[in-house]
Amino acid sequence: MSVTAAKGFTAAGIAAGIKENGNPDLALVVNTGPRRAAAGVFTSNRVKAAPVLWSEQVLKSGQVSAVVLNSGGANACTGPKGFQDTHATAEKAAEVLGRGAIEIAVCSTGLIGVLLPMDKLLPGLEQAAAALSEHGGEKAAIAIKTTDTVHKTSVVTKDGWTVGGMAKGAGMLAPGLATMLVVLTTDADLDDETLDKALRAATKVTFDRVDSDGCMSTNDTVLLLASGSSGITPGYEEFAEAVRRVCDDLGQQLIRDAEGASKDIKVEVVGAATEDDAVEVGRSIARNNLLKCAIHGEDPNWGRVLSAIGTTKAAFEPDRLNVAINGVWVCKNGGVGEDREKVDMRYREVHIVADLAAGSETATIWTNDLTADYVHENSAYSS
Amino acid sequence: MSVTAAKGFTAAGIAAGIKENGNPDLALVVNTGPRRAAAGVFTSNRVKAAPVLWSEQVLKSGQVSAVVLNSGGANACTGPKGFQDTHATAEKAAEVLGRGAIEIAVCSTGLIGVLLPMDKLLPGLEQAAAALSEHGGEKAAIAIKTTDTVHKTSVVTKDGWTVGGMAKGAGMLAPGLATMLVVLTTDADLDDETLDKALRAATKVTFDRVDSDGCMSTNDTVLLLASGSSGITPGYEEFAEAVRRVCDDLGQQLIRDAEGASKDIKVEVVGAATEDDAVEVGRSIARNNLLKCAIHGEDPNWGRVLSAIGTTKAAFEPDRLNVAINGVWVCKNGGVGEDREKVDMRYREVHIVADLAAGSETATIWTNDLTADYVHENSAYSS
Repeated sequence: MSVTAAKGFTAAGIAAGIKENGNPDLALVVNTGPRRAAAGVFTSNRVKAAPVLWSEQVLKSGQVSAVVLNSGGANACTGPKGFQDTHATAEKAAEVLGRGAIEIAVCSTGLIGVLLPMDKLLPGLEQAAAALSEHGGEKAAIAIKTTDTVHKTSVVTKDGWTVGGMAKGAGMLAPGLATMLVVLTTDADLDDETLDKALRAATKVTFDRVDSDGCMSTNDTVLLLASGSSGITPGYEEFAEAVRRVCDDLGQQLIRDAEGASKDIKVEVVGAATEDDAVEVGRSIARNNLLKCAIHGEDPNWGRVLSAIGTTKAAFEPDRLNVAINGVWVCKNGGVGEDREKVDMRYREVHIVADLAAGSETATIWTNDLTADYVHENSAYSS
Repeated sequence: MSVTAAKGFTAAGIAAGIKENGNPDLALVVNTGPRRAAAGVFTSNRVKAAPVLWSEQVLKSGQVSAVVLNSGGANACTGPKGFQDTHATAEKAAEVLGRGAIEIAVCSTGLIGVLLPMDKLLPGLEQAAAALSEHGGEKAAIAIKTTDTVHKTSVVTKDGWTVGGMAKGAGMLAPGLATMLVVLTTDADLDDETLDKALRAATKVTFDRVDSDGCMSTNDTVLLLASGSSGITPGYEEFAEAVRRVCDDLGQQLIRDAEGASKDIKVEVVGAATEDDAVEVGRSIARNNLLKCAIHGEDPNWGRVLSAIGTTKAAFEPDRLNVAINGVWVCKNGGVGEDREKVDMRYREVHIVADLAAGSETATIWTNDLTADYVHENSAYSS
């Protein structure tokens, strides 16, 4: 269902030959409804790929007619020629779709520092436009995969309106956006300001809190397009909740597909003085390589949790910290708590609770373990 | 030679039975000279081990008579009992050495969250005191090893005076001090304020810039003891340079012995607007897991260098960045530079130069690659 679950959208995913192995590598999502409202959130990395620089400009109008997405090349660190290629991509899509180029967002993912094969991409756009369909959402989701082992889609349907989406991402998942491309669509009848507010609120507590390996990409993009095709204007809270649910679901799918991971780790920080403290502590725990190795080895090593907390500026007293791993409070008041032998770590999901005993704020960060497979996947191939 | 290279020091290293495998695990370093001046630098982790809390108090007087160091247990996150154990260790050492307990620094390393076997440690102190020798430096260096594959010592001898030292550390090497215990000794005749100034200046540009895995320990300690036994008071600059050289040498030995590493990576940031910018960028590059995996795979992946730079707040323009790997400028002006095929990465040492083109400040950070062996070593055993 993906991006075509909401009315007023068509999509396609094809193999344009950008990937040398012949796998699908080019997707198109087109808004065919009465509205073209849109919002976008982009990587906070200061080294931004050409398509990010382009799409940021596109989104300034709050209008997006279509999105072109390619895998097989990030078009990042490619200089003026890379930007010209993104521009040419938007121009070509505009031509084949009969829209204005300034309403065409572009997303790319793949290896940094390599120019895209425009002789494959531009003809591919004609092929993709010819394949556009109200049932094309899944094919689009497949075409944006890189090291993803599965394609990711999610849909929430409410009373007469829908929010759906697709995502790619399997590594470089980090704060300030997990590294990924995400396109969300809705047939709700809403303006771009409302979309922007709902999208930022949702990404802040979902994708921004997915931190697989602490590495932030140059290409992160999350777009939300509204077609207005349902003719329904839902209340803000209900709409924002639906967007949040789709983002949360896609974020979870990203974590579950993280490169080389054998454990999904939910780091829940409680008892924080502020939400910012909770997020800072959660990230510090989630990024601790030694802890991530210990979790991989099914070792409930709470000392490494405390060591990670200790590097933050959050409000806490070392002798009041408590840590639970899979429900067992292995650390109480900064020291040894319940018997660590009681901790059952056989399953893929691991739940760490860090209690700062300094307030009532909370935050949850999702991460993965660090494995030899992660090393192999990221040392054997450029990405 | 180690801590007994300088006149006025004796040392010992013995097996007290703290480690279950029977390896040496207890070291003593005693100042026998006319002076007892000392300085110390400790972990900036807010979760500090009991011996760190104790030794910080000891150092406030600027006087240290002796240092007790144990491997086989970090005595961190051990609550009031852990602190009592450290205190009892200092009291026992004071008794057997005939010194005041408040002049006995204590250092521990090993697993967090486990109490030390005091029934082994206290008798061990008698045994260690009996073994003290002017040639005991090497045995002391051996007794503080944990996952270290080699013991680390260094000596600089100048005109009539000497600075020597020993270090342990092989993982959890991170900024704000690489995780380690270091004892430096000198027979120069200097007061504690001069020692403190020279030690802080040295650690700032050596141990603080060793960042193996971004993980900061609860037990980091660097001590510098002066016996005055040479009767010589060197000029500050000459002395500070000698201390810096010993610290630099020991820091390099730590990196070369980092857990599971197959590459030593020198990250040199040049063209920075400020030294702080250079350090921030160097650390960001040194901590990028994806880059560290790429280096392990002998892949000169400069895109990951740019991606890491982009997450910092340093002054730079993305389209002016240059990156050299092993002498080949693979990235110029933020884009593709010289042919990456020219980069020879067969050797253990890898040299990355990141030119921010924003000024003339520089800094060098040392790190390692990320390997499957690192994962194995840190997932198979608690540490």
